[in-house]
Amino acid sequence: MFTPRPIAFVRSPYKNTSDVPKGLGAKHTAEGIIDVLPEFQPGLIDIEGFSHLYLLWVFDRAQGFELLASPPSDNRPHGVFATRSPLRPNPIGLSVVELLARRENELQVRGIDMLDGTPVLDIKPYLSSVPYDSLRRGWLAEAEARRGQ
Amino acid sequence: MFTPRPIAFVRSPYKNTSDVPKGLGAKHTAEGIIDVLPEFQPGLIDIEGFSHLYLLWVFDRAQGFELLASPPSDNRPHGVFATRSPLRPNPIGLSVVELLARRENELQVRGIDMLDGTPVLDIKPYLSSVPYDSLRRGWLAEAEARRGQ
Repeated sequence: MFTPRPIAFVRSPYKNTSDVPKGLGAKHTAEGIIDVLPEFQPGLIDIEGFSHLYLLWVFDRAQGFELLASPPSDNRPHGVFATRSPLRPNPIGLSVVELLARRENELQVRGIDMLDGTPVLDIKPYLSSVPYDSLRRGWLAEAEARRGQ
Repeated sequence: MFTPRPIAFVRSPYKNTSDVPKGLGAKHTAEGIIDVLPEFQPGLIDIEGFSHLYLLWVFDRAQGFELLASPPSDNRPHGVFATRSPLRPNPIGLSVVELLARRENELQVRGIDMLDGTPVLDIKPYLSSVPYDSLRRGWLAEAEARRGQ
């Protein structure tokens, strides 16, 4: 395996877990800064050509894991791998953000859903997408239907 | 931070790096099995409702990292965070796969691009997508245009 190391830290308007919009219909439109450590800045060359990025980051304020998760979007538990619960065997978060601007080692992005100070493990270009028509969204679609959304 | 641990291993038709389709226009249609360790099987409850999954996995046969990457799809180097190079500061791979079937702790999936025996760190539901029309794909689109694709 490997030893995780931060390549960046997030500057986010969310200081506490309760600040982050969660559950069905949550919109992630918050803007923030991905502050890349200067030693990794050469790794950003040409990144400004991409409109959207994947961020891989650490749920650094989560403790332990639970194989059954109770997400805010449903009143029934589901397996952790069928949810975005922070209490995962490997506490890695994944977000798709829109890249608004780059200033040297700082990426200004929209759509962050992580806490201020969150360590970032990786940045990747978001290249393609599964057509929405061919997606099935399991328990989440069912929970939406039960709520009449 | 945390200590990464495998939650599953991949059974893939690809035994060597050179077997994996790469570069522009590479199609990932290979089928394989995600063999989840029995202790984590309860985390799969309700996963069969999702048509597509994110897999986070380890480039366990990559050594070290390079901040400038030379992807097979272009003859110019780019920052590693603008590519999918395996030589990353944190050697984590990300794939979107289609879930074909689940048998207890085994997930049969389509679209794998990792080597046989690759350790998996996390499985997440693939929930939404950025509309293709609003995507910009940077140097990759330019490289495609230069090749007349």
